Order: sequence, then structure tokens, then C-alpha cells
Amino acid sequence: MADNGFTICAYNRTVSKVDSFLANEAKGKSVVGAHNDKEFIDSLKSPRRIMLLVQAGKAVDEWIERLLPYLDAGDIIIDGGNSHFPDSNRRTKELSAKNIRFVGSGVSGGEEGARFGPSLMPGGNEEAWPHIKDIFQAIAAKSDGEACCEWVGDEGAGHYVKMVHNGIEYGDMQLICEAYDIMKRGLGLSSKEIGDVFAKWNKGVLDSFLIEITRDILYFNDDDGTALVDKILDKAGQKGTGKWTAINALDLGMPVTLIAEAVLARCLSGIKDERTEASTKLRYVSRGSGKFEGNKEQFLEDLEQALYASKIISYAQGFMLMQEAAREFNWKLNKPSIALMWRGGCIIRSVFLKDITSAYRNEPDLKNLLFDNFFNEAIHKAQPGWRAVVAQAAELGIPTPAFGTALSWFDGYRTKDLPANLLQAQRDYFGAHTFHIKPEHASDKYPQGKDIHVNWTGRGGNVSASTYQA
Amino acid sequence: MADNGFTICAYNRTVSKVDSFLANEAKGKSVVGAHNDKEFIDSLKSPRRIMLLVQAGKAVDEWIERLLPYLDAGDIIIDGGNSHFPDSNRRTKELSAKNIRFVGSGVSGGEEGARFGPSLMPGGNEEAWPHIKDIFQAIAAKSDGEACCEWVGDEGAGHYVKMVHNGIEYGDMQLICEAYDIMKRGLGLSSKEIGDVFAKWNKGVLDSFLIEITRDILYFNDDDGTALVDKILDKAGQKGTGKWTAINALDLGMPVTLIAEAVLARCLSGIKDERTEASTKLRYVSRGSGKFEGNKEQFLEDLEQALYASKIISYAQGFMLMQEAAREFNWKLNKPSIALMWRGGCIIRSVFLKDITSAYRNEPDLKNLLFDNFFNEAIHKAQPGWRAVVAQAAELGIPTPAFGTALSWFDGYRTKDLPANLLQAQRDYFGAHTFHIKPEHASDKYPQGKDIHVNWTGRGGNVSASTYQA
Repeated sequence: MADNGFTICAYNRTVSKVDSFLANEAKGKSVVGAHNDKEFIDSLKSPRRIMLLVQAGKAVDEWIERLLPYLDAGDIIIDGGNSHFPDSNRRTKELSAKNIRFVGSGVSGGEEGARFGPSLMPGGNEEAWPHIKDIFQAIAAKSDGEACCEWVGDEGAGHYVKMVHNGIEYGDMQLICEAYDIMKRGLGLSSKEIGDVFAKWNKGVLDSFLIEITRDILYFNDDDGTALVDKILDKAGQKGTGKWTAINALDLGMPVTLIAEAVLARCLSGIKDERTEASTKLRYVSRGSGKFEGNKEQFLEDLEQALYASKIISYAQGFMLMQEAAREFNWKLNKPSIALMWRGGCIIRSVFLKDITSAYRNEPDLKNLLFDNFFNEAIHKAQPGWRAVVAQAAELGIPTPAFGTALSWFDGYRTKDLPANLLQAQRDYFGAHTFHIKPEHASDKYPQGKDIHVNWTGRGGNVSASTYQA
Repeated sequence: MADNGFTICAYNRTVSKVDSFLANEAKGKSVVGAHNDKEFIDSLKSPRRIMLLVQAGKAVDEWIERLLPYLDAGDIIIDGGNSHFPDSNRRTKELSAKNIRFVGSGVSGGEEGARFGPSLMPGGNEEAWPHIKDIFQAIAAKSDGEACCEWVGDEGAGHYVKMVHNGIEYGDMQLICEAYDIMKRGLGLSSKEIGDVFAKWNKGVLDSFLIEITRDILYFNDDDGTALVDKILDKAGQKGTGKWTAINALDLGMPVTLIAEAVLARCLSGIKDERTEASTKLRYVSRGSGKFEGNKEQFLEDLEQALYASKIISYAQGFMLMQEAAREFNWKLNKPSIALMWRGGCIIRSVFLKDITSAYRNEPDLKNLLFDNFFNEAIHKAQPGWRAVVAQAAELGIPTPAFGTALSWFDGYRTKDLPANLLQAQRDYFGAHTFHIKPEHASDKYPQGKDIHVNWTGRGGNVSASTYQA
């Protein structure tokens, strides 16, 4: 903020940190410091705009409690941490009742974004927006001259969108890992060679921050001249927002399979000791040689298409989830703005998100990303290579949970008649849960829209058990 | 219970239901009825054993509140509904403080099991067990002469095991649906022909209640002589215990992918209107003909192996989850007993569970089902066909989220070095999250077990952000 000409007051409960900050990073900038609550509050002009950057959870509530006694009606508290959206829902309501305007803002960008322009996703009490808009849009990353920050929606909508963003980030990273694994173990390429592939991909449809840093990582050698990445322990943490996204998808009943698989893949990576033991007890068996025997060039093109198609599915699922959340929580969400906010500054920034922005600008009520002309064409073009990669990986024994679930989801989503008819029959058979009839098969005996129970065995009763949850 | 010679008192808040029950279903049996709380309580001998069969949630707490004033120290309340295990944890503790012994018991068996012998999974206050053991084991289903009921463990352990049982049931059903879909749309078989395949499978390793009823369902014709199953709407509900299992797996960080995919497949089935629209906008594209061109007999054998192998993975994941829950909640769980309880009476009863019982009886501390000789051999034998089915389905455009995730999980689980090393490098690159070094690559510069941050770009600082949750 100071870099953008705003005068700010820095405050930390550890007062020595304030002094150190003023004497170093903030030296010569429009930053003043505060050494106690009153000094901090008195330094701010009305309406006060206070941005908390503390750990999500209890610390946020504690700081709000602590500052509240000093605040006046109309003052604004902004939570810039990775808070869980139900907390932001609650805080917006509680503070609104006290005439304080609460904003929960997602902030993404990592180490560099924090300093040179993050993506900001503010939501909460919309009365606050006119008072913070100029600052937020000035400090936010820019994409083609547009600020990667717009008002997201009511209550916890900002943190919700940030949560889904992080879930999508989990998915993007998992997809890249699967492509890397296939090239490394499936094709036998070196880290340098894989880096070259990512370098090439970064000039095409996959052009993005994550592909770019993957290239850099694969090129980064240790002192002995070998790639450092090969020496890094393959155990990934997962206790954050990716998990929340998957759980929320389950709660809302939305089939967000790719993020779920990405989170679970991290869980599997986490049990390294057990995997190490399993690697001595479970061996690869197949009808093939276990070696890739096709055309490598063609396969690398297929792999690029598989990654691209899977990524389209992941974003389509993410937008479906946000759409359902907006319906569930009665939020207005601005879909073109969401894509714009993710276009720059944040970890998932990419050319791809420019195409998503265009899709939603062309048709703000677009029902599904796959129905947009651009993505519709892309997914059809990608299919043959995508299928080949999933099939090949299954035969080669390389795990592709994200590529695979994306393809299964696509094949399920484009299917009018899924096999859930059999599942409904099973549930009615063993638990008398009843089923509905397909409209085209409705009859007097089996009317449309009615709960139907059939006596499948001739033994059971005719009582249905509609309240039993199997 | 009455069928087994126990005298019981039936009570319902709607008194007319009690009278109707006494005059009909209970006529001539050792059943008395109660018309008010006091009459009900007075009819029971000490220690009173009260079994609630009411809807999970508020109704359970309301009945406990209502009956509490009449109870004496040592009385037993049993909740036989599908309660969420944290509720049973809470109720065990709360009632224990009031000297009432609480038991939360999973009950499975559907319509027939309820009447002719269910699977019972009791947990809670173990002091209650000697007072209910004879009744529970008498009424429970029998498998090879053994009662499908044993004490499961502390607090909500009974309902926990029932929850995982239901999650596994979701998985089993999804696997059967995928096999059905491949035979129907991939091979073009009729319902009768598919029924024949299930009939055959029911004589082999897949011999189970669900395969048996699937056969019956596929043979069940409507009045016009066509299979009724083809007319049933393909929308499945999912708001119950399957979802809880998937969420709990995410919470405990366990990679229970098959149940998660099964729940999400139900979600996808649920958005039928959108799928119907998508079916007109998204078409199948591949390099192949889209028709199955191999040997059908061989493929059906492969399919049986794919189903079998995926099922082994699902149960292995389920037992991993229960093991982790026991650690997390400090419960003692008896794994051979769990398998035994699921062997008869319940929806997932099968020959398969007999083999699981043997595996855990041979080695109660078995770390993973796949390390048991029987299942180890089975999974190796099944692999070639399993891989062929997943590859073939990807090429044919038939969704196989459960077969596919099971294979990916197996290939990941048996891998010592997964690509999560790259993921950890990415996290350190963009967020300074640090990583660990593989023990075999540890050095003075990169010591084992230490949080390491590398300045990948030469631009960022050397400060790590270990508290940030990406």
C-alpha cells in the first residue's frame, strides 16, 4: 500500500517488530508505526480502515474483540487471512449488528505477489467497498491493465472464492505432477528434458505461472549438477483450503472430483513409510512390457492436451461449485470478475483465465464453461490425446488420479443416461427406498415424479422406507 | 427380539401405532405395549435396556431428555439409528456423567435384515455390553454359526464402523454400476445377458448379496417384457453416511478415494437436467472407432477381475481409515470382529468378507489388507485385466471413476517415490513453504528432517512462510 502512495500505520502485538519494520523495510516510505492499541486507532482517519493479517481462526476474533471498544460506527475491519468462509459469514453479521463493516478478503500471490501485486478477493459488508476500492485496486496485480480485484459478494463470499481458488491450485499442481511423473517414469526423460517440455508448454495453451516455475524448478541444479527436485522428499501437506473445498463440494452435493482427488493424492503422498513398505510387497503386473513403445513426440502432444483438458474440467467444476454456493447462500457472485481476479497476481494466473474471463463476459449466465464455444472446441480437440494418455498410464502403471477422474467426469457429464438407474433399483430392492421412473417410460402403473416401490423378491412388504438414509 | 424369545415392550409417541402393532405384527408374540412414558419405564426390569429406533439427530436427543427423569443409575439407552459418530461420542460422555450407560449401535440389513437378522455394530459405554450381549448376538445374523455382532469399541466407535460400512456400500454399488455400464454401452449386452454375467460372477470371488440382487434386478421384467431397470430414473441420492465417510477421510487425511468417487458419482447422477443438456453439446471423440473390438469373453473375465481388484482396494482403504480413526480417537477397534460383523446380515455381506475375517484373524495387527497373502496374490492376479478395463473404458468413453481411482491409488500406493517432490518444490518456490530432503540425499547443506527453503529465483527473500496454508 505504501508503495502505491497510501500512508499506512503498521502495528503488531510484538512492539519490537514494529520498530524493526520502520527502521528497515519501511524506511523512507509513507509508513508510520503504532506501539499500542490507542496509538494505532488514533492514527487512522474516519472511517477507519483496519486490515488484519493474522493467522486464520481464533486470532482474528481476538483482534476484533480487542479493537472493537475503540471503534466508531462505520469503521471497517478487513480480514486478509485465509479464513474459513463460515467464519466470515458470522463476522459480517455480528459486526454489522454493531455498525462495524466487516470485509473478508482472499489474498493470493505468495511471496512475490504479496510484495508486487496480489490478487484480492474482497467480500462481506458491501458498504465498505467504496471506502477501500481505490486502495485495493491500486495495490492489486494488473492483467492487461485491469486490476485483479473486484467486489466478490456478500458475507464470506470473498473467502469462499479464495477457498475455491486454492482448491483449483491443488488441482493444477496435481495435474502438473502427474504429467511430470509420466514423463519421468513412463517415458524415462531426465529432469532437464522434462524442463524443456514445460518450457515449450509455457508458450502454448498452458502458459501460466505454475508451468513456468515448474520449468525453473526442473532446471534448478544442486551443487553436484543434478536436479535438486529429485532430492526433495515426496510428502505433501494438505490440511488447508483444498480440503475445505472438497468438503464443501460434498456438503453441497456438487461433483468436484478433480480437487477431491488432488487433496487425496496429497494424503497418499503423506504416508511415505507405508508406501515404501508397499513398494517391496506390491509389484507391477500387466500384459504389456511395462515400457512405453509408442511415438514419444506424439505422446508428449497428447500429454499437453490431457493436461489442458483436465484443467478445463477442473475449472468447470470449480465454477459449478461457486454457482451452487451462490444459490445455497443467496450470494450474488460476479463470475467474469472472479476469472479476472485470478488472471494476475495469484498462483493460478494464466492465459487460460483470460479465456475464462472472455467466456463469462460473452455470456455472464453461461451454465457451464464447457458450453462456451472456445472451451467446447478445445475439449473436443483434446479428447483423443487425453484418452490415449489415461489408457497408456493405466497400462504403464503410472498413477493418474486427476487425469483419470477428469476424463471419467467428462464422459459421465456428457451422458444422458448414467447407470444410476441400477443403483436406484438396488436401493429399492434392499431398503425399499423407492425410485422415480424416466419421463419417457412413465405409465399409469409407474407415473412420472412419483415415489415407486417394487416388490422385487415377492417376499418383502410393500412399505417403503423413504426416511432411511443408505 | 421377540422372535428370539425375549419379552419386549413396544412404545411409540403415536399411541395408536402401538395398538395397531400389538393387534397385527406382534400378535401372539412376547410383546407388550406401553401407552405413556411411565407405563413404558415401569414395564422394564433393572437395569433397564431401552433401544431407540428413531431418526438420527434431534429426535435421539429429545427421547433421551424425555426418558432421563425416569431412569436409575446403571440403566442402558441404546441408539440403533444411523447417528453421526460425533453425536454418539458426546452422548456416551454426557450420559456416563449421569450414571446412564449409552450404546450407539450401527444396524444394517435393510428391509429383510431388520426382520430376519441384521448386522449389529454396538459401541459406547462398555459396561452395558454384558447386559445386552446375549440379546444382540441372538438376534444378529449368523455367518458359519458365528453371530455378526461383537463389541466394537468406545464412544461412537459403533456408529463410526457403521458409517464406514455404508461408505463401502456406496463403493460396492458404484463398482457394480460401472461394470453394468461397460457391459451395456461398451459391449452392447442386453439386460438379460448382463444378468447372466452377474449370475455367473455370483458363483465366484464376487459372490455377495449385492451381486445377487443385481442379477435379480436385471432379470426383473416389466409387464411389456422389457427390463424394468432400464426405465428407472438415473438420479441417486447421497446425503447420508457415504458423504460423512468421505468428509471424515479428508479430515483425518486418509486417501479413501473410492468412497469419495462413489459419493461424487451420485452427485453427478443428480444433475440429470444439466447432463441431458450436456449430452447434446459434448460428443465423444477418439482415435478409435468407439466400438469394442476385442474378445468379449476375455473382456468379461477382465471386468470381473477389475471389479474384484477395485473392491479389494476399497476395503483396504476403509480399514486404513478405521485404523486411523482408532488412533485419532483413542479407540480400541477389533478388526477381525468388524469383518465378521459385515459378513452376514448387512448389505455388503459376501464371501469376500470371510476372507477379510481370515486375514485379520491370521494377523490382527496386519498393517494393510494388501499385505495379507490371500489378497496380495489376488491383486497381482487381477492386475492385467484391471488395467485393460480401465484403458479400454477411457478409449470407449465409458466413465469409470471408481475402477480408475482404485487403479491409480494402487499404482500410487505401491510407489516409493511419488511426484509430490515437485509439488513441494512448487510450494517452496511460490510461498516459501520449505521442504524436507530425501534421507538418501541428505547432506550438510540439506540435512535430513530440517525445513529447507531455497531461493529458486535469486529474487525472493530467505524468509520461509511455514505458517501459511496453501
